[in-house]
Amino acid sequence: MVPAREQKTGEEKLETMRHSAAHVMAEAVLSIFPEARFGIGPAIANGFYYDFELTRPLTPNDLPVITARINEIIAQNLPFIREEITKEEARQKFSDQPYKLELIDEIPEDKVSLYRQGGFTDLCRGPHVGSTGEIKAFRLVSIAGAYWRGDEHNPMLQRIYGVAFATREALEEYIKRIDEAARRDHRKLGRELDLFSIHEEAGPGLVCWHPKGATVRRIIEDFWKEVHIKRGYEIIYTPHIAKLGLWKTSGHWEFYQDYLYSPMEVEGEEYIIKPMNCLYHILIYKTRLRSYRELPLRYAELGTVYRYERSGVLHGLSRVRGFTQDDAHIFCRFDQLEDEVAGVLDLAMFMTDTFGFVNYQVLLSTRPEKYTGTAQMWQGATDTLERALTRKKIAYDIDPGEGVFYGPKIDIKFEDAAGRAWQGPTIQVDFNLPQRFGVACIGEDGKEQPVAMVHRTVLGSMERFMASLIEHYGGAFPVWLAPVQVTIIPVADRHIEYANKLKIELKDDGIRAELDDQSETVNHKIRQAQLSKVPYMLIIGDKEVSASTVSVRCRSGQQKNDILFTNFKESVKKAITDKDKEMAL
Amino acid sequence: MVPAREQKTGEEKLETMRHSAAHVMAEAVLSIFPEARFGIGPAIANGFYYDFELTRPLTPNDLPVITARINEIIAQNLPFIREEITKEEARQKFSDQPYKLELIDEIPEDKVSLYRQGGFTDLCRGPHVGSTGEIKAFRLVSIAGAYWRGDEHNPMLQRIYGVAFATREALEEYIKRIDEAARRDHRKLGRELDLFSIHEEAGPGLVCWHPKGATVRRIIEDFWKEVHIKRGYEIIYTPHIAKLGLWKTSGHWEFYQDYLYSPMEVEGEEYIIKPMNCLYHILIYKTRLRSYRELPLRYAELGTVYRYERSGVLHGLSRVRGFTQDDAHIFCRFDQLEDEVAGVLDLAMFMTDTFGFVNYQVLLSTRPEKYTGTAQMWQGATDTLERALTRKKIAYDIDPGEGVFYGPKIDIKFEDAAGRAWQGPTIQVDFNLPQRFGVACIGEDGKEQPVAMVHRTVLGSMERFMASLIEHYGGAFPVWLAPVQVTIIPVADRHIEYANKLKIELKDDGIRAELDDQSETVNHKIRQAQLSKVPYMLIIGDKEVSASTVSVRCRSGQQKNDILFTNFKESVKKAITDKDKEMAL
Repeated sequence: MVPAREQKTGEEKLETMRHSAAHVMAEAVLSIFPEARFGIGPAIANGFYYDFELTRPLTPNDLPVITARINEIIAQNLPFIREEITKEEARQKFSDQPYKLELIDEIPEDKVSLYRQGGFTDLCRGPHVGSTGEIKAFRLVSIAGAYWRGDEHNPMLQRIYGVAFATREALEEYIKRIDEAARRDHRKLGRELDLFSIHEEAGPGLVCWHPKGATVRRIIEDFWKEVHIKRGYEIIYTPHIAKLGLWKTSGHWEFYQDYLYSPMEVEGEEYIIKPMNCLYHILIYKTRLRSYRELPLRYAELGTVYRYERSGVLHGLSRVRGFTQDDAHIFCRFDQLEDEVAGVLDLAMFMTDTFGFVNYQVLLSTRPEKYTGTAQMWQGATDTLERALTRKKIAYDIDPGEGVFYGPKIDIKFEDAAGRAWQGPTIQVDFNLPQRFGVACIGEDGKEQPVAMVHRTVLGSMERFMASLIEHYGGAFPVWLAPVQVTIIPVADRHIEYANKLKIELKDDGIRAELDDQSETVNHKIRQAQLSKVPYMLIIGDKEVSASTVSVRCRSGQQKNDILFTNFKESVKKAITDKDKEMAL
Repeated sequence: MVPAREQKTGEEKLETMRHSAAHVMAEAVLSIFPEARFGIGPAIANGFYYDFELTRPLTPNDLPVITARINEIIAQNLPFIREEITKEEARQKFSDQPYKLELIDEIPEDKVSLYRQGGFTDLCRGPHVGSTGEIKAFRLVSIAGAYWRGDEHNPMLQRIYGVAFATREALEEYIKRIDEAARRDHRKLGRELDLFSIHEEAGPGLVCWHPKGATVRRIIEDFWKEVHIKRGYEIIYTPHIAKLGLWKTSGHWEFYQDYLYSPMEVEGEEYIIKPMNCLYHILIYKTRLRSYRELPLRYAELGTVYRYERSGVLHGLSRVRGFTQDDAHIFCRFDQLEDEVAGVLDLAMFMTDTFGFVNYQVLLSTRPEKYTGTAQMWQGATDTLERALTRKKIAYDIDPGEGVFYGPKIDIKFEDAAGRAWQGPTIQVDFNLPQRFGVACIGEDGKEQPVAMVHRTVLGSMERFMASLIEHYGGAFPVWLAPVQVTIIPVADRHIEYANKLKIELKDDGIRAELDDQSETVNHKIRQAQLSKVPYMLIIGDKEVSASTVSVRCRSGQQKNDILFTNFKESVKKAITDKDKEMAL
């Protein structure tokens, strides 16, 4: 009779069950708050919510009570009964439910459908499960405030979020995953490990890197520069503002205005803060006539750019308004393009591998509906990108028509230890800017030739990459990146002198060592260092002083005693040089 | 009779003579261009100028002709004759000289004075030398355009600049000095050595660092970071924009508005691009309660700031609109202030010494008329600065009342090889910001205590310091700073393979080596490397290939043959490690 319903996919079935769970939760709330007014209660990803107007604010203590009521309703296995009535009848029925009345007014049809289970009837299009017993595994997870219909001019309602799954195992698995994600949340760890801060009074989305976070960033940047110089990049610096006219010439003002900050005025000229570094790289390229023999030129810059993002979408370090791109632009002949792209792919893989990421998804985006350049140029460049990917033996998917208007691109998303995907390296061919700015070279025949321009980053931005690193390692950075690599803990004051000597020796060898000489117990100091996720703690007592040894405690909890200090030092130096990827969580 | 004139100082006499030279030049121009109209012709530092309206543009070829006429007039030893007439008579006399008429209208007195020598009479207050023979040693140096009265709405006149001195020796000495200064001009060398560029279309005063200039900057920055970390500074990063409100709280909006860029708008909030880094350092300090035990905290940042300077005063790298300060802020207890200031002095001297500067002038600026804080606070801090200077055995002058309103300061000016003084390190105590932002710590007694805040830079800014380095070394950077340290020059194509092997070996050891494999003569390649001021050229021919040796040519012109390549490499590495200050000009 109803084959469409029978053919539902697992995901559709889950959604229906989650929606039914919202109704059951509403019934439970109504039984506890008889004067409750109801907003809406949809299914969402992984679960459901319902918005209520109640006579008092809910607290987390309410959730177990509501949960118990829901479980009773589920146990009763009450059927969901559908009914159709006229809008006028509905207005009668919901006369004390102003939000429902508002919804009824907006329904274009003459009749509306209701769903009833037990003592609760809701205005609802459905569908629902057959009876409340079909709700298998749920958990109420949080309470939040939500304006009616998301409009801040409307009353603030109280929203209860729940999650629901087909089996108890699936629910547990999900809860474990979000607990793990919360534990690794870079905003939480950033605060706990004193890595960075964002200040409302200075502006949302603008990141201050504290000494410890800045240390990690500096090490990444130093490594980045070293690797780039070795691979033939030239590092440059360019300003953060430029005249508006430049962004009009480039087309940014026309196409990306929504992401640009409003202009500022200097001596009657309008300037904007740069949203990207490419134009300055072009200006440097163009300071003199370039011979084909000079190419490829690879200009790299750790360039800080500013783009407008609505404050609602800002998120820790991963979505910000000011960020430092590990940017580079390659100017090359078209016959060099394949080698250059292959080189960037190799570099991108090398960099992300070094930081401990092993799983990737690679996408090649091809010509969109609207594009600049000719179809032939696009075909040529896309073929070149494919050849480079094949040569580097990198598996990829094609994302048809998803290239930016100015050229085809390769995007690499890498996965962190918790399975979350991060936007990583990107390689984009650009047909637009070289044409708008007349970027060319003098060929072997003495004539002007067009030049290929490639935009690329291998980490993305320092901010987002740092977020991914924090979450990947759960804040326990590998030794080479750890802001503090060794904490030295003297057992008593008489051990401070020797401990200090060790600190100086470690520092002289470039190891970031700290001495904890506070008047606290050894256990307290170990706990402190453990919370700071310091890779090594050296416990120094009488035995260590007399034997020139150390007791080494790793943040994993392992401890080894009677290690010769020089041996310890050399092994730390080796771990740093080798960029050991130990995951010592 | 005229004792005042007799008592003139040497400088006043020179000024009078220079002014008379301007009149003589005007007479010479009039004799060549009878239809000339005259603007003004004052004495200036080192010489004089006169502005003319002529029927054709002057060219450098005109200068010898005018010079010859001036010499004739000097040889005639014509007397300067003063005369007073009424303004009405003057208007008659200068009826064909519109600029003079304008000047006459502005003279408040009824009578005006004229000076006449030979066939030329000028409206002039005087004084002048007795006769043209007293003009001893002059030279015409340049032609420039100049708007009448400096106003771009007025006609553009032609200005001839001359220099004049009391003796031929003094003139020659001066010419030699400006020739040397011109030869070392960082704008000229910056172009010739491909170090940086400034683009009118992007904005005046905004510097693009080309690969070679950026290499020097990067090495300076790396060294700077290394030294700061060793001395207990913590390096941080902060954004380039912040909400306007923060700059209102700090007082910058009130006191420095003329130097700030106009605000930009983001989501209804006004932001400005930061003119200084201090506020963000305060925000980081204030992210948690600080114990007296944590102090001193030394936050260091290579922070790029933007300040408005009129386009007329911008000058290469030394006066710009965007610059990177080698900034740091020290938060310490008042009983730590002397040690901290002494530490900064030590660091400042160490840094500038390392870069090869040996002569300094040190100024201590004391309390101005208007100040924040109490007279007692000023006295205490000024005494502390003096004690720190005395302790470091640094000779200094007091600049009374020249402190900034927020606290006393020490400024260090260093001298380059050509004797030019550069604004270098600065150390400022600040009583203002800690008070406005409530910067404090928790003392041993558990109560809140005020904290001393010190602003300091040791190089000033990367831009201005780079300008000083370029001029100090005349572009011939010492080996450790040279963008290219070694150029390898194969004599013939058959030597390229060996040359390339050497390049790779040098690069593997961190030496910036280049191979010049162009199809040019060895002499041409040597000339190229010489022009680029590369410290070492390796000439590779048959003998070198067979004996694993190199012929080393230094940019000084010295050449040594049959050097074992490993010996050469080790000596370059040593020069780099030791930061040899060789002045190989």
